[in-house]
Amino acid sequence: MTQFSLADQSFMDKALTLATGVKGSTIPNPAVGAVIVRNHTVIGEGATAPWGGPHAEKNALKKAGSNANGATMYVTLEPCCHFGKTPPCTDAIISAGIKKIIIAHRDPNPLVAGKGIRKLRRAGIAVSIGLLGKEAKQINEDFCHSIITKKAFITLKLALTLDGYIADKNGESKWITSPALRQIVHDLRRRHGAIAVGSGTLLADNPQLTVRTGRKTSPIRIIFSSTKEIPVDSFFHRNAKATRSIVVVRKKGMQQIIQDTATGIEYWLTGTSDPLESMHRFAETAFTQHINSIFVEGGGTVAATLLKAKLVNRLYLFYGNRIIGAGISGIPMKPGLAISEGITLKDRKSIIIDNDMYVTGIPVYP
Amino acid sequence: MTQFSLADQSFMDKALTLATGVKGSTIPNPAVGAVIVRNHTVIGEGATAPWGGPHAEKNALKKAGSNANGATMYVTLEPCCHFGKTPPCTDAIISAGIKKIIIAHRDPNPLVAGKGIRKLRRAGIAVSIGLLGKEAKQINEDFCHSIITKKAFITLKLALTLDGYIADKNGESKWITSPALRQIVHDLRRRHGAIAVGSGTLLADNPQLTVRTGRKTSPIRIIFSSTKEIPVDSFFHRNAKATRSIVVVRKKGMQQIIQDTATGIEYWLTGTSDPLESMHRFAETAFTQHINSIFVEGGGTVAATLLKAKLVNRLYLFYGNRIIGAGISGIPMKPGLAISEGITLKDRKSIIIDNDMYVTGIPVYP
Repeated sequence: MTQFSLADQSFMDKALTLATGVKGSTIPNPAVGAVIVRNHTVIGEGATAPWGGPHAEKNALKKAGSNANGATMYVTLEPCCHFGKTPPCTDAIISAGIKKIIIAHRDPNPLVAGKGIRKLRRAGIAVSIGLLGKEAKQINEDFCHSIITKKAFITLKLALTLDGYIADKNGESKWITSPALRQIVHDLRRRHGAIAVGSGTLLADNPQLTVRTGRKTSPIRIIFSSTKEIPVDSFFHRNAKATRSIVVVRKKGMQQIIQDTATGIEYWLTGTSDPLESMHRFAETAFTQHINSIFVEGGGTVAATLLKAKLVNRLYLFYGNRIIGAGISGIPMKPGLAISEGITLKDRKSIIIDNDMYVTGIPVYP
Repeated sequence: MTQFSLADQSFMDKALTLATGVKGSTIPNPAVGAVIVRNHTVIGEGATAPWGGPHAEKNALKKAGSNANGATMYVTLEPCCHFGKTPPCTDAIISAGIKKIIIAHRDPNPLVAGKGIRKLRRAGIAVSIGLLGKEAKQINEDFCHSIITKKAFITLKLALTLDGYIADKNGESKWITSPALRQIVHDLRRRHGAIAVGSGTLLADNPQLTVRTGRKTSPIRIIFSSTKEIPVDSFFHRNAKATRSIVVVRKKGMQQIIQDTATGIEYWLTGTSDPLESMHRFAETAFTQHINSIFVEGGGTVAATLLKAKLVNRLYLFYGNRIIGAGISGIPMKPGLAISEGITLKDRKSIIIDNDMYVTGIPVYP
């Protein structure tokens, strides 16, 4: 096990901060940060540019210029060694004369993992791996998951009353949670490639599914539907040309994507009426369509289906200061699970903001 | 507004700690702490003894002895000036020669509030009021409430899954919450005069309703029932002679208390079949029976009835790491409330322990 100094940790921490800062803007690429250090001084830093633009390593090398020769690089992910939309980063690192490189974690793709590292080592560069690796993986947990499983990473978020309802008996759900919590939801939306809701939520709330802070382009919008019917006066329908807008149709037939050029809506026909199978096909299609992370905001039917399909990779439960005694359940399963066989959350964090709270974790399925 | 020094705050804080330390053991008396200071040094301290024993002031005076002459006393509640089970504290304070007294808050009983203070002032003692008054009132919120309303203070506690259920479809509720949270429940039980559950919970869980830490005597046990039937093999029935055990019977007829000497069970017949009215009569009877704080641990029917009757004075919701999709609702109301008319929690605190969380606050009824 390589020993890292406190200075090493501090530089890698800076690289992680750079990665976090661009999270959401690099999709479907991972958000990566790189820092170049010489004589204990940062001489270059960079983060991944939006898709098609330079990766973090190249941005940092550009800042460092000829000073990079003989310097040390800290990077949050194993540098790429293949031609994608941009030439391989390993070549740029080698030709810049980097002497030592510290990598937070290997490329999660089992087909390429370690190849970048081997290429760097063959060029005589000293390579260390694993510094703040857990933290780095967390930033790109969606990317890591999707590259391995070939399915989009799905985050499910529900806003609940203290007694577990997402809406009252009349379907009203505004405003269960506080402005402070809603701000966090906007930040989470920003970090995902697409925002999705069920058709019931579309009908009840006519949501905009936009990000109101910190991102110039809106994420892709997705509606789950068992029919193709989307109200023409809905925000989704009226704005389908402004942002990529997808309706996922669960229906027996051919599995295909149909582009409606008149409205701008893309219909993804999953070709099956089985709710769980349809969701699995959806997650696979999303990955092939370069949508590797999806933020699902309900409603209850979609939530329960995704959990039953074991497709939720991260769950967020936001609790508002309300008790209503009866209403629309957040995760309505039929039948429910036994306590002993309930879904639990791994790596669970409970967080309090202005006395409101939310819980997040990785679902562990019975 | 009287100005208090940092030293004053520190001594009153000590008195509050003494009060908190005896909370639960002084019922139906309030838990009070007193500190006597001379030349910036504590020369006596005391807390309320169990009912019938000396109050905090007298315990502190006893420790201080003749040094109390000319000293300052810090006490968390206005000293009593009437003969109850013990002679008035005001007389003892005056005859000990206390020169100055700082009181956290007035006696909440509007019939006696201020009388103790006037008596002390007439004797030439300098009296200041209000130092850490909010904190002091919080310790005895149950006492303050009951002395004013002539009803027992009711704390409702529910242990919920993350999606709001108190048990699964089979009625199973063990163990929704973690050991760390269950420890807090035991501490809360200790602070109340009685522990109560509905007959459904009695049948399903056969609970012991005991305090497993920090208290020698068990609190009084209460079961809510619409009939008088208690299973003879239940822990409650078998141990009714060891601890005061009450069955509250909601039934039309005469309002009365019947002592069953054979079993040891006390039956409180509320004389009405109306669930809300029955609960109000119960809260009044409890107060007259010197039970001024009750810790109600469900089930759902009792919880919903108490909330509908607006009788819950403090609510605790404990959340365990489980999602079960369907089960027995924690607060089943028919019909539910609208979001805009939901019950909210005032002075709400969300607290995290070992990544488990609970919420507590004072219900605000629509």
